Amino acid sequence: MASPITEETLKVSYEQLTDLEKEFEENEVEIIRHQVALNKPLYEKREKILSKLNGFWALVLEQAPPEVDQYIQPSDSAVLLSSLKNLTVSHFEIENGGKGDPRSISIKLEFNENDYFEDAVLEKKFWHRRAKSGWTGLVSEPVPIKWKKPGKDLTQGLLDLVVKVWEEDKKRGPGKGPITKAKDYTPAQKELKKKIETVGMGGVSFFGWFGFRGFPISEEESQAATEKDKENRRLRAEGKPVPDDEEEEEEEDEDEDDDPYGLEIFPDGDELAIAISEDLWPSAIKYFTSAQEQGDMSDIDFEDGMDEDEEDEEDEEEEEAPGGKEPPAKKRKA
Amino acid sequence: MASPITEETLKVSYEQLTDLEKEFEENEVEIIRHQVALNKPLYEKREKILSKLNGFWALVLEQAPPEVDQYIQPSDSAVLLSSLKNLTVSHFEIENGGKGDPRSISIKLEFNENDYFEDAVLEKKFWHRRAKSGWTGLVSEPVPIKWKKPGKDLTQGLLDLVVKVWEEDKKRGPGKGPITKAKDYTPAQKELKKKIETVGMGGVSFFGWFGFRGFPISEEESQAATEKDKENRRLRAEGKPVPDDEEEEEEEDEDEDDDPYGLEIFPDGDELAIAISEDLWPSAIKYFTSAQEQGDMSDIDFEDGMDEDEEDEEDEEEEEAPGGKEPPAKKRKA
Repeated sequence: MASPITEETLKVSYEQLTDLEKEFEENEVEIIRHQVALNKPLYEKREKILSKLNGFWALVLEQAPPEVDQYIQPSDSAVLLSSLKNLTVSHFEIENGGKGDPRSISIKLEFNENDYFEDAVLEKKFWHRRAKSGWTGLVSEPVPIKWKKPGKDLTQGLLDLVVKVWEEDKKRGPGKGPITKAKDYTPAQKELKKKIETVGMGGVSFFGWFGFRGFPISEEESQAATEKDKENRRLRAEGKPVPDDEEEEEEEDEDEDDDPYGLEIFPDGDELAIAISEDLWPSAIKYFTSAQEQGDMSDIDFEDGMDEDEEDEEDEEEEEAPGGKEPPAKKRKA
Repeated sequence: MASPITEETLKVSYEQLTDLEKEFEENEVEIIRHQVALNKPLYEKREKILSKLNGFWALVLEQAPPEVDQYIQPSDSAVLLSSLKNLTVSHFEIENGGKGDPRSISIKLEFNENDYFEDAVLEKKFWHRRAKSGWTGLVSEPVPIKWKKPGKDLTQGLLDLVVKVWEEDKKRGPGKGPITKAKDYTPAQKELKKKIETVGMGGVSFFGWFGFRGFPISEEESQAATEKDKENRRLRAEGKPVPDDEEEEEEEDEDEDDDPYGLEIFPDGDELAIAISEDLWPSAIKYFTSAQEQGDMSDIDFEDGMDEDEEDEEDEEEEEAPGGKEPPAKKRKA
C-alpha cells in the first residue's frame, strides 16, 4: 500500500496532472488534424451522393439527437424542411494546407428560395481560442439574416439587434472588448437586453444561433495566452519558478457587475456548433438511415422534391412517423 | 431544385452511403491506431504520477458518469473504495507493434489485499469482431474471480455459473457455438437461467461484468466476414453484381427459440467497457479534479492511505461530499 499523501505531494501531483492534460490536448489537436485530412475525400464523395437525395439534411435535422433537436422550434422546422438544401462543416483554419487550429469550424447552410429570408447561404464561423484566464473554447461573430418582412423574422428582431450592437463594438476600435457592465450599456444594448427578457430564452429560434458571439477573445490574446501557457509548463517541467499573475485576473473576475454573457441571445451557441460538427455531421448517414427505418419514410419524403408549398403536409408526415415501424433495436442484432 | 427521386436512385444512393460508412469506419480505425501510439507515452507518464495518489481510481469511479456509475452497487463501491489500486486500459491487439484491431481493448483492475477475493489482478479482454450478418462490436470471455467465501461473492454465484457454462462450451469443441435454445440447455445452463431470474437483472454487481460474453463470434468468422464485406464493396464500386446470401441468414434470425443473450448476466458489458475506455480512462483527471472541487475532498480522502477497515468511514464521507462546495459551473468561466 502506498504511504500517506502529504499536502505537498498532492499539490505537485495536481500541477503535473494539469500540465499533462495540456499535453493530451496538444495530441488531440494533432489527431483532429490527421482525421480531417484523412476523411476529406470521403466527405467529398458523400456530398456528391447526397446531392441526389433532395431533403437529406432537413430529414437529418428532424432526426437529430437532443443536443441539436432541442434548439429547433416548430416554426424553424417548417423553414428547414421546406428549404434547407445543404449543410457543410469545414475546419477552415486548416483548409488548403493552413496551419491554424483544426478545432475552429465553419458551418454552412444552403437554402432554396423561401418566404423567410433572401440569403441563399448562411455561414457561421467558430474560432477556437484561449483566454488569459485559461478558458478555451469556441467564439464567433454574428451573421446577419436578410428577412423578407419583419413578420418573417423568426428571431423576432433579436438577431438584428445583436448585429447592431456588434457593429457598435467594432467601431469602438480594436483592443476594446464589448461593454459588459449593464450600467454602461449603449441604447442599442439596453434595447437588446430588454428584448431578450421579453422574447424569453426558452423559445428562441434556431436562427438565433447565428447571433452567438461567445467570450470576446481576440486572436492576439489567444496566441499570447497559448505561448505563455506553454512557457509556464516548460518552466514547471524543469522545476523552475513560474511568474504568478493569477491573482490579478481573479480580481477582475470578482467584479459582479460584469456579465459577458448578458447580451447573448443563444448562450449555448458553441455547444450547438460542437453537436453539429462532432455528431450530426459525421453521423448524418446513421441518422438518415434511422429515419428511414423508423418511419419507412422513403416513399413519403423522397419521391417528390419538396418546396415551400408543402410545409403543412410535412407537419402531418412528422406526426405519422412514430406510428410506423418500431425503432431499430438498441441492442445488437445478428 | 433537384429533380424528383426515383426508387432506383434512392436504392443506389443508399447502397453507396452504406459502403461509404465502411470507408469512414476504416479511417476511424486508422485514427485510433494513430491516437493510441501518440498518447502512449502520456499515459505512461500519467500512471507514474497517479501511483503517488492513493485511491485515485476509486475516487474516479465514484465520480464516474452515469454510463459507468449506474453499474456500481453500494456493496461494489465499498470494495472498490477500500481496495482498488489501479485501473489500466490497453489496446492489446496493437501493443508492441501488433497489427490487430485497435478497437479491441483490455481493462485491467489491480487490487490491494481485501476480504472479498484472492485475485490481485482482474483483467477483462474485449475483442472487436464482425459477424456474418454484418453486426460489429465487442465480444469477451468470462473472467473467474476467486471469492474468499461464498458469502463474499458479490455476484451471488452468477459469475461462477457463467464460467462453468463457458467451460462446457469450450469442451464442445471449436466451431461449435454455445447452445442458445432454452429447450436444449445443459443442467448448468438451466441453473444459470434460473439464477438470473432469481437474482434479477436490476441489481447485478459490477463484478458480474467479468462474466460478459457477448455475441459468439470466433476470430475466423470475423476475418472471413471482413474479407467478404470488402470484396462486396469492391464489386459494388465497380458496378458488378454481388453474390446474395443474405436470405439464408435472415432465416436463421427468424428462429424465435434462439436467444443468444438468454444467459448473459451483464447484457450491457460491452457498453460499460466502451464507457470505461472512451470516457473514464481518457477523462480520469477531469473526473478526479471535479471530485476535488465538488467536495474539497483532498484533505479527507488523500491524507491517509485507505484500507479495508475504513469502509464504514468511506460511506460517511460520501454522504458529506454533496454538502461541500457547489459543483463547478457547467458554463465557461473566465
